[in-house]
Amino acid sequence: MFKYEVIHTCAQTGARVGKFTTPNGVIETPVFMPVGTLASVKALSPEELVAEETSIILANTYHLYLRPGHDIIERAGGLHKFMNWNRPILTDSGGFQVFSLSTLRKINEEGVFFNSFFDGSRHFLTPELSMKIQKALGSNIAMAFDECTDAKVDRTTAKTALDRTARWLDRCSKIELNDDQIMFPIVQGNMYEDLRKESLDKTLPYAKCGIAIGGLSVGEPKPKMYEMLDILKPLLPNDMPRYLMGVGSADCIIEGVMRGIDMFDCVLPTRIARNGTAMTRRGDLTIRNAAYKDDFRPVEEDCDCYACKNYSRAYIRHLINTDEIFGGRLLSIHNIRFLIKLTNDLKKAILEDKTADFYKDFFKDYKI
Amino acid sequence: MFKYEVIHTCAQTGARVGKFTTPNGVIETPVFMPVGTLASVKALSPEELVAEETSIILANTYHLYLRPGHDIIERAGGLHKFMNWNRPILTDSGGFQVFSLSTLRKINEEGVFFNSFFDGSRHFLTPELSMKIQKALGSNIAMAFDECTDAKVDRTTAKTALDRTARWLDRCSKIELNDDQIMFPIVQGNMYEDLRKESLDKTLPYAKCGIAIGGLSVGEPKPKMYEMLDILKPLLPNDMPRYLMGVGSADCIIEGVMRGIDMFDCVLPTRIARNGTAMTRRGDLTIRNAAYKDDFRPVEEDCDCYACKNYSRAYIRHLINTDEIFGGRLLSIHNIRFLIKLTNDLKKAILEDKTADFYKDFFKDYKI
Repeated sequence: MFKYEVIHTCAQTGARVGKFTTPNGVIETPVFMPVGTLASVKALSPEELVAEETSIILANTYHLYLRPGHDIIERAGGLHKFMNWNRPILTDSGGFQVFSLSTLRKINEEGVFFNSFFDGSRHFLTPELSMKIQKALGSNIAMAFDECTDAKVDRTTAKTALDRTARWLDRCSKIELNDDQIMFPIVQGNMYEDLRKESLDKTLPYAKCGIAIGGLSVGEPKPKMYEMLDILKPLLPNDMPRYLMGVGSADCIIEGVMRGIDMFDCVLPTRIARNGTAMTRRGDLTIRNAAYKDDFRPVEEDCDCYACKNYSRAYIRHLINTDEIFGGRLLSIHNIRFLIKLTNDLKKAILEDKTADFYKDFFKDYKI
Repeated sequence: MFKYEVIHTCAQTGARVGKFTTPNGVIETPVFMPVGTLASVKALSPEELVAEETSIILANTYHLYLRPGHDIIERAGGLHKFMNWNRPILTDSGGFQVFSLSTLRKINEEGVFFNSFFDGSRHFLTPELSMKIQKALGSNIAMAFDECTDAKVDRTTAKTALDRTARWLDRCSKIELNDDQIMFPIVQGNMYEDLRKESLDKTLPYAKCGIAIGGLSVGEPKPKMYEMLDILKPLLPNDMPRYLMGVGSADCIIEGVMRGIDMFDCVLPTRIARNGTAMTRRGDLTIRNAAYKDDFRPVEEDCDCYACKNYSRAYIRHLINTDEIFGGRLLSIHNIRFLIKLTNDLKKAILEDKTADFYKDFFKDYKI
């Protein structure tokens, strides 16, 4: 039920256009996946996401396990039905959130004890439980339960984590998923070249129709992230999608695609939208600024999103500055559309073997 | 450009179905007007309002004068264009908000000094300024600037306020509005029968194509409100719409319609929606309650709104309990649709001369 096909690889950079077939629809890659942490891409409806050509979203195992509980979602008929989203869904494993959001966590070989970030209740998450939760949620792509380390840890810690991640991956692989579900394993190894390679070697046997790169965008400088991607690029399998986890700024997506990455996700576009920041081809635009109070142009002049077709910067600024929910909603739509258009532009450049030219062009105007 | 026609008056109660033609479209009455205080019906898009058959919305002069400023909205091409809403708009005068929201207000014959509710800045609002702001906003229906008293004031205070309201009304009437705009004058008089009649007498000469009843739903028991409406009912002109300001619970709308009221507005449906309360034919449903955690039925089984057609109580409860914006959005849609369906049901009952029967039927199931 899952199939991935490379349509074209750019002669200039090796960037790929692919077609990823899933039981809930076809995903053209490179793709940006908006994040619907709690079974809702914040403020937006499924119809709005579809209108801006969203082909897959991500939801969070950690959050949904805590609230409302995966048993309830299972009884609702699964996540697709629960949230009225018929296109593909990817769920993360909860690994990253256990480490980034929870307090009093205690890790052992069996799994991780942690306290819930919102009510302090004590939980124990294991590779097996993570897979069972994701099975109950019924996502199309389940992520393996891994140990994600932050950019500052020493080599020994990174090595311990990658070894444990490998053992946990084997345990994850033993849990039978639904027929319309596959698992992506995750390459760890922190910022150490040899550890990244070692982790990849341990991961490859479990990669059936997709592989993820985790533990990047965890505090390291961007060039360090790109260096790790450069190391992995020639070693990653060609016949499956490659997913760079938690990355979603325009510059990082472009840098990733140039290094053969196919899938991206990030809360960034929707989070900064709610704070009043619009993504544009010239860089971020802080719509709260007084400069926009009587600027009746759309957020981006040539943008085809619902927000830009119907509303002015002045209106959106007014909504954001008066805490009107609709303002964050409009900017969320714009920012998601911006990243989807960016991936569309990248696809076009790849098909024309012009990604290096695209890269040069893009960064002429774009202010990081 | 404005025309009101009574289509039918119910033989049982005198409730009316009317057709109110405005430059921005026809409004069938009785009508419920959702409130878009700051040029946005909180959380909702114009398309969502139209999908649920909203035919007119209300916006607030007081709020828009303070933010973003009526000059900006005027330069944007008016409120309709600014907020992407092409159907009729009614703006209140700011009178009620000056009294209910502002601190340090000081009233004199000329107008009212007040401090902005959000930044404390000092302002002076007069009948002339209120009309000029509403002219700049470009609403279709502008409200006269009145002095609204709360239910507890004594007769002398109520009398002073109604006299001032009458003098202010005359001043309002001298401000020329746009061609596609008319003014509704407002009957005050608090809870005093003779004062209500006196205010009506002073108001009638200024009522061209609409008249409003203000100063109700300001803290009095509901039967007191109905008593005031009973007093006014035989005295109100038949050839124009009658607008009961600030009223929007199902029971009050029905009681109002039975007393010949045609137009209603209230923040209630959207405000309680964001707090997790759904309006239903059996009364309010507190969707936060644990009882709904695995209730996979829609909010209301026979409801045709977007929320009920696509989402379960369990999903909406989950969103509300996790502070997900989409939850309040779904319930806002439902509650607005609920009141619009209620006015549709009332129209049907009126056309069939069966409003007294409808009334009995409705309150058999409805828990206030």
